[in-house]
Amino acid sequence: MKLIGIGVGPGDFELLTLKAVKEIEGAAYIFIPESKGKSIAYEIAKPILKNRQNIVFLDIPMGCSRDVYRSCAQRIMEVSRDKTSVFLTLGDPNVYSTFTYTAEEIKKMGGEAYTISGIPSFIAASSAIGVPLLKKGEKMIVCDSVEGLSLENIDTVVVLKTVDKEKILDFFEERGFKYFYIRRCTQKDELILTNRQEILMDTDYLSMIVARRR
Amino acid sequence: MKLIGIGVGPGDFELLTLKAVKEIEGAAYIFIPESKGKSIAYEIAKPILKNRQNIVFLDIPMGCSRDVYRSCAQRIMEVSRDKTSVFLTLGDPNVYSTFTYTAEEIKKMGGEAYTISGIPSFIAASSAIGVPLLKKGEKMIVCDSVEGLSLENIDTVVVLKTVDKEKILDFFEERGFKYFYIRRCTQKDELILTNRQEILMDTDYLSMIVARRR
Repeated sequence: MKLIGIGVGPGDFELLTLKAVKEIEGAAYIFIPESKGKSIAYEIAKPILKNRQNIVFLDIPMGCSRDVYRSCAQRIMEVSRDKTSVFLTLGDPNVYSTFTYTAEEIKKMGGEAYTISGIPSFIAASSAIGVPLLKKGEKMIVCDSVEGLSLENIDTVVVLKTVDKEKILDFFEERGFKYFYIRRCTQKDELILTNRQEILMDTDYLSMIVARRR
Repeated sequence: MKLIGIGVGPGDFELLTLKAVKEIEGAAYIFIPESKGKSIAYEIAKPILKNRQNIVFLDIPMGCSRDVYRSCAQRIMEVSRDKTSVFLTLGDPNVYSTFTYTAEEIKKMGGEAYTISGIPSFIAASSAIGVPLLKKGEKMIVCDSVEGLSLENIDTVVVLKTVDKEKILDFFEERGFKYFYIRRCTQKDELILTNRQEILMDTDYLSMIVARRR
């Protein structure tokens, strides 16, 4: 059994790679994680998923336990058998992805797991705000929390989880970094904010902050 | 005049996005940087560049001065006039890209410049070595030199320039990180090494090191 984790990118269908489209089209089964009956990965890849009979949704709630990944892996192994199947995931499958944990369980069960790169949301965000992430000689940090972060010699910081926005904005203001808040990058309801009060008022799971040294 | 910087990814043609292909196909002119008469971006995008009459090569040597970008921008403005053209670049146009400097000059001259994301080489490298870059709660640094780098609370480091390999490997060994050397990721002559002596013997501009905390 071979499972390929495919990054479908941040939101715009056209940010899928040619390879992603090819593998999805040729897959025995298409496994798609959903939470509370919703799946953004499905919504993104919809143009090539319509009329497909071989889609299997997997219930993977946010912040779930290792048991959930184990039972998902079990189901994937049972359904896919000796075939090659794909597992769709937002952004890239190697950056804060549920695929990582599913793949670990698949391998423990004797299956094979690989990945096909997708455009990570922070890469798309850089295009959206029109600000480069890295110029010659610069350094960047990608994280999901500013806890314990040292910004010595760092020029760009991407924070991919914005639950504690006030703390994050304070952190960057104290260190003289300017920041951009990007909600649902490349999706229909994309929103870019730079004003502190407006940022604090917005709440959306799919948002990130990109900060640059002034 | 509108110039779109398009990331053609790390090497495999199939890692171009659908959007990149669409924009290249519709462009008035396709500007492609070359150095010493060679262009990797051209080689990658070749399957859709064959028989195109509107390709303009720009001589942009490695480590060139601001003057070179300025004269390239001038040429692009003159050739493209009021049309929308594209500029092809390796990986993503916002990560250590010559496009960043060209775009700055284009804007100074009154033109518009945007980017379309491409798969960065370090994202593709993660798929190639089968090791995730970021798991929940982890932090990553992307840099082109380990000079002045603090690894406190850092789990992954990507070094996108490997001129001083001995120094880089020492740096990671002293800090207990394991490392992977990836040459020409996703290209025909891709090579992945983990042995120090073998890494030191290889020399290639298009190589990187991905290090993970043990």
